[in-house]
Parts: sequence; C-alpha cells; structure tokens
Amino acid sequence: MAETKHVYRFGKDAQGNDVTDGESKMNYILGGKGANLAEMAKIGLPVPPGFTITCQTCIEYSGADNVWPEGVVDEIEAARADLEERMGKKLGDPSDPLLVSVRSGAPFSMPGMMDTVLNLGLNDESIKGLIAQTDNERFAWDSYRRFIQMFSSVVMGVEGDLFENAITTKKLAKGVKNDTDLTAEDLKDLVTEFKKIFSAHVDGAEHPQVVTDGKVSFPQDPDTQLMLAIEAVFGSWNNERAILYRKQNKISDDLGTAVNVQVMVFGNKGDSSATGVAFTRNPANGVKEFYGDFLVNAQGEDVVAGIRNTQPIEDLKRTPGVEEAGKQLEDVFLLLEKHYHDMMDIEFTIEQGKLWMLQTRVGKRTAAAALKAAIDMEKEGLIDKETAVSRVNPAQLDQLLHPQLDPKAKLDVLATGLNASPGAAVGQVVFSSNDAVKFAEEGKPCILVRWETNPDDLKGMVAAEGILTSHGGKTSHAAVIARGMGAPCVCGVESLKIDAAKKEARVSGTDVTLREGDLISIDGTTGRVILGEVELIRPELTGDLETILEWADEIRLDPEQGRVMGVRANADNPEDAQLSRDFGAEGIGLCRTEHMFLGDRKQIIQSFILTEDASEKKKACDDLMKAQTGDFLGMFKAMDGRNVIVRLLDPPLHEFLDDPRALDVEIAHLEEQGADKKVIAEKRDLLRRIDSMVEANPMLGLRGCRLGIVYPELTEMQARAIATAMAELKAQGLDPKPEIMIPLVSLESELAYVRGIVEGVIAEVEKEKGVKLDIPIGTMIELPRAAVTADQIGKHANFFSFGTNDLTQTTFGFSRDDVESAFIPTYLSKKIIKTNPFETVDDGVCKLIKMGCEGGRSANPDIKLGVCGEHGGDPDSIVKFYGIGLDYVSCSPYRVPIARLTAAQAKINAKKGDKFTDK
Amino acid sequence: MAETKHVYRFGKDAQGNDVTDGESKMNYILGGKGANLAEMAKIGLPVPPGFTITCQTCIEYSGADNVWPEGVVDEIEAARADLEERMGKKLGDPSDPLLVSVRSGAPFSMPGMMDTVLNLGLNDESIKGLIAQTDNERFAWDSYRRFIQMFSSVVMGVEGDLFENAITTKKLAKGVKNDTDLTAEDLKDLVTEFKKIFSAHVDGAEHPQVVTDGKVSFPQDPDTQLMLAIEAVFGSWNNERAILYRKQNKISDDLGTAVNVQVMVFGNKGDSSATGVAFTRNPANGVKEFYGDFLVNAQGEDVVAGIRNTQPIEDLKRTPGVEEAGKQLEDVFLLLEKHYHDMMDIEFTIEQGKLWMLQTRVGKRTAAAALKAAIDMEKEGLIDKETAVSRVNPAQLDQLLHPQLDPKAKLDVLATGLNASPGAAVGQVVFSSNDAVKFAEEGKPCILVRWETNPDDLKGMVAAEGILTSHGGKTSHAAVIARGMGAPCVCGVESLKIDAAKKEARVSGTDVTLREGDLISIDGTTGRVILGEVELIRPELTGDLETILEWADEIRLDPEQGRVMGVRANADNPEDAQLSRDFGAEGIGLCRTEHMFLGDRKQIIQSFILTEDASEKKKACDDLMKAQTGDFLGMFKAMDGRNVIVRLLDPPLHEFLDDPRALDVEIAHLEEQGADKKVIAEKRDLLRRIDSMVEANPMLGLRGCRLGIVYPELTEMQARAIATAMAELKAQGLDPKPEIMIPLVSLESELAYVRGIVEGVIAEVEKEKGVKLDIPIGTMIELPRAAVTADQIGKHANFFSFGTNDLTQTTFGFSRDDVESAFIPTYLSKKIIKTNPFETVDDGVCKLIKMGCEGGRSANPDIKLGVCGEHGGDPDSIVKFYGIGLDYVSCSPYRVPIARLTAAQAKINAKKGDKFTDK
Repeated sequence: MAETKHVYRFGKDAQGNDVTDGESKMNYILGGKGANLAEMAKIGLPVPPGFTITCQTCIEYSGADNVWPEGVVDEIEAARADLEERMGKKLGDPSDPLLVSVRSGAPFSMPGMMDTVLNLGLNDESIKGLIAQTDNERFAWDSYRRFIQMFSSVVMGVEGDLFENAITTKKLAKGVKNDTDLTAEDLKDLVTEFKKIFSAHVDGAEHPQVVTDGKVSFPQDPDTQLMLAIEAVFGSWNNERAILYRKQNKISDDLGTAVNVQVMVFGNKGDSSATGVAFTRNPANGVKEFYGDFLVNAQGEDVVAGIRNTQPIEDLKRTPGVEEAGKQLEDVFLLLEKHYHDMMDIEFTIEQGKLWMLQTRVGKRTAAAALKAAIDMEKEGLIDKETAVSRVNPAQLDQLLHPQLDPKAKLDVLATGLNASPGAAVGQVVFSSNDAVKFAEEGKPCILVRWETNPDDLKGMVAAEGILTSHGGKTSHAAVIARGMGAPCVCGVESLKIDAAKKEARVSGTDVTLREGDLISIDGTTGRVILGEVELIRPELTGDLETILEWADEIRLDPEQGRVMGVRANADNPEDAQLSRDFGAEGIGLCRTEHMFLGDRKQIIQSFILTEDASEKKKACDDLMKAQTGDFLGMFKAMDGRNVIVRLLDPPLHEFLDDPRALDVEIAHLEEQGADKKVIAEKRDLLRRIDSMVEANPMLGLRGCRLGIVYPELTEMQARAIATAMAELKAQGLDPKPEIMIPLVSLESELAYVRGIVEGVIAEVEKEKGVKLDIPIGTMIELPRAAVTADQIGKHANFFSFGTNDLTQTTFGFSRDDVESAFIPTYLSKKIIKTNPFETVDDGVCKLIKMGCEGGRSANPDIKLGVCGEHGGDPDSIVKFYGIGLDYVSCSPYRVPIARLTAAQAKINAKKGDKFTDK
Repeated sequence: MAETKHVYRFGKDAQGNDVTDGESKMNYILGGKGANLAEMAKIGLPVPPGFTITCQTCIEYSGADNVWPEGVVDEIEAARADLEERMGKKLGDPSDPLLVSVRSGAPFSMPGMMDTVLNLGLNDESIKGLIAQTDNERFAWDSYRRFIQMFSSVVMGVEGDLFENAITTKKLAKGVKNDTDLTAEDLKDLVTEFKKIFSAHVDGAEHPQVVTDGKVSFPQDPDTQLMLAIEAVFGSWNNERAILYRKQNKISDDLGTAVNVQVMVFGNKGDSSATGVAFTRNPANGVKEFYGDFLVNAQGEDVVAGIRNTQPIEDLKRTPGVEEAGKQLEDVFLLLEKHYHDMMDIEFTIEQGKLWMLQTRVGKRTAAAALKAAIDMEKEGLIDKETAVSRVNPAQLDQLLHPQLDPKAKLDVLATGLNASPGAAVGQVVFSSNDAVKFAEEGKPCILVRWETNPDDLKGMVAAEGILTSHGGKTSHAAVIARGMGAPCVCGVESLKIDAAKKEARVSGTDVTLREGDLISIDGTTGRVILGEVELIRPELTGDLETILEWADEIRLDPEQGRVMGVRANADNPEDAQLSRDFGAEGIGLCRTEHMFLGDRKQIIQSFILTEDASEKKKACDDLMKAQTGDFLGMFKAMDGRNVIVRLLDPPLHEFLDDPRALDVEIAHLEEQGADKKVIAEKRDLLRRIDSMVEANPMLGLRGCRLGIVYPELTEMQARAIATAMAELKAQGLDPKPEIMIPLVSLESELAYVRGIVEGVIAEVEKEKGVKLDIPIGTMIELPRAAVTADQIGKHANFFSFGTNDLTQTTFGFSRDDVESAFIPTYLSKKIIKTNPFETVDDGVCKLIKMGCEGGRSANPDIKLGVCGEHGGDPDSIVKFYGIGLDYVSCSPYRVPIARLTAAQAKINAKKGDKFTDK
C-alpha cells in the first residue's frame, strides 16, 4: 500500500528555493486556505513558509476517536523540523525563537469555527529571545499574553471572559483606558496572571499533557503546544456548532478540516511594518481599482476590529517605510487576477519592509460589481463570456431591479414581517382599496394595509406604492400579485392588529397606533416596516446588466451548446406583457384571466354565479364574452408574433362574491335596528345563495377545469373570445399566437372533455370568420394525480405547464394561504425544513415533475414542457428545472432577467458535466 | 392462411345426431347465449337447432363499414340450408314453413341492446302453410303481425308506436279491451295495416333491398329477411346506446356481438304448450328447490310482462298436457347444476308436450342466497370451499349487516340524497345534537338533521338512530363517522333547506316542512328520505355468513396458499373495539384520538388552545394526560393480545373551537342591544383568539404531525398516556400491544422529530415504571410527498398506514368536505369519472401507494404496510390493495366481514393467475 501523504509543505527553503507541495486545486486535501497559500507560493509570491496537515488526516483522526493514525505524528514532527531548518530557527529557542500560527482551513469557508492560535512557540525562555531579537519588550510580552489567552480558550476551552476581566482589572488598577496604554511590565504581570487562570481552570484529568508533578501549568514545551493546538483544530470539526453549520449549509461531514502551521510574521514591528486587507477591484461597484485598508504597525485583527482608523490601500505605496512593499503589492494584485482570472480578496502583512501574503480567495461583491467586473475582465481578456456569465449571482440581481431604502438612513423599525416582494416604498397608510384609489387620484402616495388581500383588492394594490398585510405568507394573494406587479410587499406582520372599520392598526409590543394618512416606509426586501418616511434609492438599470444578459442569451439560446430552456413571463394585461417583452421574455407563459373579471365586471360575474334565471345567466355570459375579447385583443397585440398562453378561469367562484360573514353581521345589525323586512329578506336570500357557494377548503373545491365542466358556458365564452380576438388580429395582418391552457386537471377525461368544447368553439369561429386558427391546447400539471398519470393526460395536450405553487400545496398538503403563518416559521426554526418549499421547489415535488415530464413525452413526443409557478423565477429552482429537462420557465416580468441568467448558467454547468446534465 | 370459421352450428341433425360445433367456454366467439346453447346441446339437452354467427364476424363486418367479409354470406347461406335440411323444412315454404328467431348475444350480457326478431320466414305465402300445419288461423296471423312489427322496428327503425296505435285503433273499432280479444280476421287486417305502415315509413333509398319497382314493400323473400335481420343485429353493436353501455360497464368495443339464428318453438300452441323461466335454486334465500314461473299456452314475453298470472314451477309436472315435460325439466335442473357447478337461471318452452331449452346462465341471487347456495353446494360435493368463498359478492354482504326498510312497505319518498352509510332508521326529527341527546334520554328515537356535522356533534350522532345532512358527500364528517358507528346516514340532501334556529326544514319542490318531532325514516342504503314511519327489518346474522367467513379465513390466513393480507378495524372506543373483535378483526388499524377530546374534555382542549398563559396550558395538558390514560387502558384491555395502532391527534385545532361566525353575529346583536361593554369586550377577545386559528383551507393547515411539532407538549402528553396505560396493564399481567402512528407526515424530518419526542417519553416511562415497553412507531402515508419520498421516510418507521381518504384528497386536489356536493355528481353524470374516488380507490392514487410501498420496503425490509382509509372496507379497493401487496387493511367494524371475504377472494384470484398476482 502506497503511503498517504498527510503533510504538505509550502513556501521556500533556507536557500530561497520554493519547496511547495500543493496547489489551489487541492482544496479538498489542503482546505481553501492551505491550497491558496500553496498556490501563491508556487507562483512566486512571498508566503511565510509553513506546512498543511490534510483534511483527510482530520477524518482519520476523529474517526479513530481522536487517536493519531500511525506515522502521522512523525510526519508532523518531520515537517516541523524541516520548517525549523528552512527558517534557521527553532520553536522555543531562548535566543531566537521561531513562532508559528496554527489555523484551521476547511474545503469550504466555515466562518465562526475557524480556530486560530497565534505566536505558538513562546514560553518563559523563548520570550527572552524574542525580546532580544526585536528589542521590543512590550511587543514580546504582548505576544506572549496573546498566545496564552488564545491557547487557553481555543485549545483548552477556558472561558475567554476570564482573561478579558483580568485585563480590565489591570487597566482599572493602572487608571488607563486602552490596552495600548499598558506597559511591558503590566503585560508581564498579565502573563503571570494568565498562567494562574490557566492552572485554575484547566481540568488536568482531561488534559494530562499539561500536568507536571500533579499540577496543572501552562505548557512550556513547544512540541506539546503544537500537538495540542493541532488536535484542538481537528476536534473542532465535530463540535456542535460546526455540525449544525454544515447541516445548514449542506456541507458534507466527511470533508474534514486541514490545519495550517505557518511561520508568524508581524505587522506590528514598528513603522516599516503594516498589515491590511484588500480586493483587487472595488467590490461595491466593480471598478478596476485597488480597494482596501491598511494600518501601519498593527496586527491583522486591528484592521478588522476597526479600533484605529485605517488608511486606504492606495496610500500604501506613498507611506514612508512601506513604500516598496506597497508597490510590490500592486504587482501582486495584477499577478493574482491574471492567475486566478477573478477578483481576489487578500490579507497581507509587511514586516519590517518585507511584504508577506497571508491569504487569498475569490472576493465577494455586490451585483453591480459582479456585472462590471465580469464584463471588464472579459474585455481585458482575463475570462471568456461563458465565465463572465457564470460570475454573476442571479439571486443578487433582484437588488438592481427594485428601489431600495437608503442604506445610510436611520430607521425606526416598527415591526417585521415576511419579505414577500422586493423593493421599498413610502406612503400614507390606507386601510381599503377604495381609499388607496382615492389617495392615488389625489396624488398622495399610499401603502395599502390589509389583514390580507383578495382579488377584489387589485385596483387598490395597483394604486398603492406598496402592500402590507398582517396575515398570509410569501405565496399569499398579496405576495404573489405584488411580485407579479413588481410592487414592494411585506406580508404576515402578525404584530399589526388592524381594525379596518376604524381605519387604524395597533402595533403589539409598542404604543404605536397607525391611522389613515400616517407616513410609513416598507422594505419588501427585508420585511421591515418603518415609521415615517425613508429616502428611497432607485438603482439604475446599468448597461452592464444588459450586456451580461445578452451574453447569457447567446449561450442559453444556442442549440449547439446544449438543450435550450426558454424564458417566458406571467402577465395578465398588455402593460405587463410589454414590460416582460422589454425584460427579454420570449412569450407569455401564463396569462391569468381571473383578474379580468374584476372592477366593473365583478357585477357581471356575480350575476352569472348567483342568478337562478337562465336568460340572465346567458346575458351575463354574453357581456363577459365581449369584454374578454377586448382583453385578448390587447394581450395578443402587445405580444404580436410571440406565444401567449391564456389560462381559462381558475379560482373558486366564490372569490368573486361578497364575504358572507360580513353580510351575516350586517343582517344582525339590521334586524336589531328593526329595518324594513323586505330589505332583510333580500339580504338573507343573497346570503343563502352565497352560502351555497361556500366551501370548507376552497383550494380543493370548485375551481380550475371543474368550473369549466360544471359551467361549460364559461369555457365556451372564453374560447370564443380568444378565437375571435385572434381572427380579428389576423384580419389586421398581425401574427397573434394564443395558446389555451386548461387548469387544475387531474383526470384525462377532464382534459378531453374541456378540449372538446374548446375545439368545437374554435371550429365554429373558423367557419364564421373564414380563417384558419391554429391554437395549441394544453394543461397545467399542478395536482399529483396529473403528474403520475401524465402518460394518459399527455395524449390530449400540446403542452404541459407545471403549476408548482399548487403542486407544492397538494404534494405537501400545505395551504398556500395559511400555512406559512401557522407552522412554516416553526418548521424553519426547528430545521424540519431548510427552505420554504413555496420559494425553492422541493425535491419531492421535483420527483413528480419528472414523472410528469416522462409521462407527457411518452404520450406525445412533441409536447412542450414548462413551468409557470412562482418557482419559475427562483434561481435554485430554475437550475433544478433545467436538470429535469423543461423547455421553458415562466415567471413574473421582474424576474425575467434573473431567469435568463440562471438558465444560461445551468446550461454552462450542464456542459461542464455538472450533476444536472444527467437527467 | 387457414380459413376462419364464421358460423357454428348447434342442436341435432335430421337423424337425431348432435352436430354442435361450440361449447360454453367459447363465449368470446359465440357470445354468452350462443355458447350456452351449444353447451346445452352438447350435454344432450333439447335445444331447438340453429347456428351462431361469431362475434369476430361482427367486428370484421362493422370494421369494413358494414360490408360482408368475403365468403361469409356463403357460409350463412350454407348454414341456413343445413338447418333447413336438419329440420326437413324450408324458410318461406307455403306448405310447411320453417320459422326462425334472430337474436344478438355478446360475450357479456348487455341488456337493452339485445335486438331480437321472432317468427322470421313468414310471408304472404308461408302464412298459409303455418295455418295449415297448426290448424290455428288466429295463432298464424298473430305470429305474422308480430314478425312484421318486430322486423319493422328492430331492423328498419320504424317507430314502434305506429304499430301499437294501429292495434289500439283496431280494438276501439271492435269495442274490445284486450289484444287477446282480437280475432283471426282482425289480426289479418292488422297485417295489411302493418305492411302499409312499413311502406309509408321505411326509407327506400336507405334500404334498397325492400324496394321493388320503385316501391317500398315488406320483404317477402326469407333470404332478404334473414340477411337484413343479421345485419341489423351487427349494426346495433355500434349504436350510441350500446357504445355508452360498454363505456359505463368497461366492456371493450373490440368484442363484437354474435347472432343466433334458431328454429322457432311455440309455447302458445294450445294446452300442451307452455313457456317459463326458472332458477335451479331459490335466488332469494338459496334454498335447494325449483324456483320459477310458467304459463300454459303462452309465449316467453307473456311470462315476463306479467299480463297473466303465472304458475309456480313446481306445478308444472302436475299440469295436464305438460306433466311429462315438467318431470323432464326437473332432471334438466339437476343436470345443469351438476354440469355448471352453480345455480342456473333458465328459459324454456314446451311445444305440444315437447320441452325445449332456450337459454341458460348463472343465476343472480341475494347475499343470503349466495351464502346458502355456496355452503350447500360445497356439502353436496358440487364445489370446493374455495369456489364457495368466491361465489359470494362481498358488496352484497352489507345487506346482511344492517337493518333494512320493509321491502313491502309503501314509501312516501320525500327527498333523495347520497347513500352515505347503509341501513335504515326511523325516528323523530331533531335539529341539534343537544336535542338528540335529550330525545334519547326521554326514550324517543330520533334522526339528527343537520346542514353538516362536525366533531362536536358526536354525542348527538351517538344518541340518534340515524343522521341526515343537507350538505357534504360520502366522505363528509357525517358519512365517515356514521359508517364507523354503523349508523344509517343520508348525506347531501340538497332539497332540504334547514333553519336550525327555527327547528324546521323546508323541502324544495314540495310543500312539506319538517318540524322537530316529526317522524321520518331514512334509508342509508339507497339515500331515500321517507315521510312517516316505515317498518324495519333487522336481518339475522345467519350461521351461513359465519361459515363462509371461516372458510374465507382458512384460505386468507394460510401462508402456504399465498401472501396473507390481514384485516383490522378502525375503532376509537372499547365498545367498537369489542364489536370489531366479534366481527373477526385481528387488531385495531386505526384508533383516532381526536374523538376522545370531546364532551367534557372539550373545555380542556379549548383552554389549551386559547390560553396565552403558560401555566394554564400546562394544567390543561396534565388534565388531558389523565383522561387519555384512561382511554387507552380501556382500548388496550378490550384488544388484549392484539395490536392497537393509536394515531396521535390529527384534526385542525380550530375544530375544537366555537364557530367564529356565530360569535360574530352574537356580538352584533349584543352591540345593538347595548349590552355590557365588558361582556362585549370579552366576546371580542375570544373572537380574536379564535380568528387567529381560522385557516382558509383547514384540510391543508395546522393538523396532523404539524400540531405535534408546533405543540410538542401534546405529543409528549399522548405518548406518555399510551406508555403509562401499557405499563399499568402489563403490571396486571395483561398483554397490551399498542403502536403509535404519527399522522400527516410529508417530510422525513417531521417523522424523525416526532419519533424522537415519542421515544424519549417512552424511555422515561420505562425508567419510572421499571418495565420494558416495546411500542412500534409508524406513520400515515396520506400525502403525495410522503408516497414519493417513502424511501426516506421509511427509515424512521416500523409501519406505514396509507390514509387513502387524505391521499385521494391531495392527489386529486378534491376536498372531502365539499367536493361531492359541488361537482362530483356532475362528474359522474358527465362520465368524467366512473366511480367516486372516495369510495373506490383511484388508479392514480394506487400508483402513489405502490411507490410508497416500494420506497418503504427499500428503506426497511421489515416494515408493515397497511391501509386505514375508508377504502379499506370497499371490495374493489381491497382487491387493488392485495395486488399492490399490502400487509393488512383496516376498516370500520361493520365492514370487517366484507374485508375478510374480499381479501380471501383476491388471494384466490391471485392464485389463479389473475392480473393482480403480478405486482
């Protein structure tokens, strides 16, 4: 058996030759930090020498119940000896001691569990050497007390506050304010004090290595120090915190962490020393400029802690004592970008004029920066277009597409709810849709505040700047519609106790009561509700976004590069259709017709539903037909030459009716007031008819194609309106492309029946108008039964559109309307679920979608398969949909750019052999 | 290519030798009628000779657009000539004509499309021969007019009323009342009249065969008559009526019908002639006796029409003129039973003393008859036990298990609803559960009449004799609970307009208003509601049922004969548990705990839900724990030694709360009345808390395991009560076998979480009581996600129980509470669905169950798989469950016998290589 290498060296030897064993690709072996240290050393950058103990060693060690695998301790010993030889110094040497840092470094960044011990190698003897070498007694004692403090807390688990308290006590005794005011003598005292704390709080039985003659004392032997530190880092892989973090971030427990043992360099050795962090470009806007901060005569943590005012990185090369290192750093930046082909984030230290690189990794950036950097780098020849497209995080794009609260504003946050639709809005509080319309007409921006919204609120939602509800979740009516409109929305603010009749809302836990006309601001990106007006920032849609999306489309729409996934939009009116076209949608994947029945037309649909008279019903239907024809003329015209999938009427009919509960209360009042008996009788009759439509579970009731089967006249009316509009536009020489979608099908026979009606009507209109009307007919797949019997249903469908909202609802048995406020928050907090399945499509639901696709294609090889649920605009979901093999996604207009980008990235990953290529 | 035979002969030749080509097994070729005629002829019974044209000919003929396949006409001609030779007579012979009947006969009985033409071969010449041969002019002319009438309507499609009108006109003219009063001369006139009708109403262009010299006239050529009749029968296979019938009865369109051409025999040739129908045993009670009716000097249709009083079959052998034939018939009965090993239904005719058999088939029978006949035949050695078990239709058993309305009673049917729970009940109308309890206490039987019921009605439902609702379907609360209790229930009587406040119900379409105390009868077996009291018949549970069930169990529970499927019961209290044990249940597959929270305990659960005070919540929980422990002691004791699966709390919590809408109205009244503000404020506060629990779709809301996750204290309480009860009974030396079932799981993590809590509690109780408690823990699979991810969920489950009610609900997106009244009736009437999926499990749902089984077994090979939905007691569903491979079904106690029988039959069929053997 070949021996496995457990320890990898990096940096130079005594002769100045690079002896690095690893490279950046080896991050599964060396961890992210170790691999990049090796890479930097390899490409000639000044990296303090050291060695990395591999991640696999960690797994072996902890797998063997914290016993070292055979030979590994020897390997570490050898690496230490080698490092001492390379440096010409020894750990613990009383004359010129070598000091090292011990740091963890897993393959993926795991902030918060990165244990670090600095200045290892110091003891009561070697401190003398450090004083002698640096001629800086204060620095030396400070280094020693830091080491004891870190070692005690990180390696031995001693409560860190004990040390901080000792420092505070010392400062009080000395009457000084800052740590820096303590003298070398003070620090020396603290070292003594710290060693006492160590002896008092470390359990000798648990740590026999620190027991001498039955007494616990701070270990003086550098070997003991080193091995204990390494073991502590390995042990930290399996602490509760780390396990939880990995579970949350879906990081495998089998990866392990590496340990980096590296020679210490000091940025606090006087004015020719410094330390800093930097990005190779501006991470806020992507501009190609050096970006970062440094401090002269300081240690790394000082920069991050923000105790002292840092200097901008461009000043480094003009700062006396570090000028040369500063110039060298700029070359390093260029070299790193050229080498990594990306914007890098680095840490460096200058020790007495010499530059040392301590860390590099790919830099995090804003959406704007990601766009600009990607485009610039492509132009600079650093990366190709494909890479540029991959560099932008689609989820971040949302930032660019909506107004935001001024980040500098001081916020009086009144309450927090669900971030249901991104963007911010400011306006006066109104409690009804009518008031919202009134305010808007008077030119007063307003925020519509409701317990929850229903289709009748649409005009108010359109009139308002934003929507705020006390009930309902991220897929409630308010949230779905707001996202569709691109309007900011905060939902489910439970602390808001609304009394709409009184036009006021109490905020629990505060003494605030909001009244009509009060100014508030809402932030749909974070879910915050703020008292008063906050300045809004309307980000520009920069040309960079357009460029990246064009590049994305070049890849996405090129069949030679792999399967093409189209992007369509969900839009219910010509304005939204135009908007989605502007955002690059290739068609309309979902045009809901129920919103067309509101406003003036609500009376007509009400009379259709409630009348028991056949001729009245007929008249209502005819009136609707006329109005609908107009709707479709507008839609098809706006999308001339592109597909428009019109979904036949879907919601439960009683959504169009008045609230029986309110009517009930009204009648009670009228009765007590002794109102006219005839009036009461009429109201009672209305109530009876409405009650006859009430369902215990409307989501599972008379809706979708069931409506069109129970009331075939509605199906006929809609089909006729669509066909008529198409015929009229064709006569005008346009190219309308409607498709008809039948919702909520669970049975082959349902689809066959409704399709029969629709085809009959189309044939009639063709005959009447003397024109051929080619209108594909398909169905939503939004019930589990439809998915598992798609091989039957597919026989009658030209296309399937997966309605993932409803499919999620029935697959889980979670109500979209209720569930989020009822138990989804508990589920998230108890980690029963990782993400809300109404936001990112669930894997169980994906199984059904996959079955649906396979079934549909087996029945009809030409079938088009798409998705038009909310998930169509969610990046994680889009990647899954590409993997399943859908032909298109359809999402709200504002998410079309996100979908275009994500679909392109999914394709790029698929080309690279990502797991999603293999369906 | 071998020539296909299109025509098969049956009966004897001129020498008295049997020349039959077919047999009873050939019913797919000869049709049921033809195959059994052949079989009878083969075993030596006197069958009038004839021939059968095969079903395949029909398919070829109609497939070729009603053109005869080559050679077939010649084959028919030859068979006709052969028949003439065998009989020594010719069709149309003026001296002694042969007359034949032409009848259809498909492989499956299709009543209503069985076209028949009798007396074919008569014409203006051959009538003379018939007169001469029979010496009965009246008989001859009557035969001729019947032939013209049948031929015209069946073959030519002439409206039958035209002929009936002519007869009526004749009778009026002659001043007589009955057809039999018409003389030979009158009938001769009618023949002339009928021929005129023929000429006037047959379209010559459509039927060129009946046109001579440009004139339409009744065809005189027997060949033309025969071919037209045969073509008409074949054509009838594809008439609308027949196509619809086949669709409804799942009969393939590819089977075709055969045509039987058979020599006419006449039961109306004087007193030595007769005709009759009979069963080899009594089809009402199964007693081994000859059973049937005959008429002397009559034709077959006269017996069925009931115009003349028939005589019982046992008189036949004592009736002068037909004694010998009567004795011979009894021998035929014995021979048929011995040959067919079953009770047969026959038709016969005696022509001038000679017996002729015209038809035989397996006889339909009542449940009681089926049981008795099966047991007797086994004892007689006619059949084995397996066959006996297969002979009883499980669906029929229901008849034996519930009281019935006296079938002789004259019923004043007031309205009809859904037959939601079988059996009949009589009582006084009450409109509330409290009134039901009051009436019951006063010893007055009552019927609870409600819009719909909810868990709070349970005490009223128990107190009442039966339940009647105006809303809700067969799986509504009322229906499910009533079936569980074995109480008769009629649901969804839409014409009932209930005003519970006024204690009255108007019945639309009538002038009846039911008031409290009015006597009504309901029939849950048919859905009828009857005004007044109807006598009830309480059928005995005869020993026959027990015998058959014992035989069924011998087969069902024998592992050597194939996979064993157990039968358990759904029971929530010790009485039902005992009942189900008496009915042969092997355990309790579902003990719902929500019913245990009603009555006095409702207050406690209400206070648990509504209080915002932690100590009150705790106290409520402790109180529930004590009460629940008592519940479980009772259940486990009643089922000592057998499994009891206890399902943790399942329904939405707000089911335990008051109706917010009623409270709303109450507050409105109080406000108008100027009631105490404090009282109103308290009511408002209560309303607010109740409203905070209201969900738009409670079926998809906070229920099942979600409750146990949001309120872990409820889970702990229930687990502790179960474990404590088990420990106490073990201490008493009993053998309690509880299992804990976690409902409404959709995620592996949910089950793992709740299981963790339950296991923790069990371990605590084990420690406290010092006893080992082995309690299997499983889950309901009742959501599509659970079914498709059963491979994950199964890791944490000792058993799965498929909750097919909820699974059907979410797989289809049909609400159990609403859907049936809303659109299931429309779906059934429009043939969108064939059966209500809440009654017989749907194939799409079965796909998910199958996935669930496969997933569960892959995760845990020892997993037990069962079903506890309503479908567990439905025979068609039980057969599917056996096919899928479930380990047990669980159903309401009253359906346990049905399940035992069906499971045995499914196993027998599987052994025989039925399609369900192959999973």
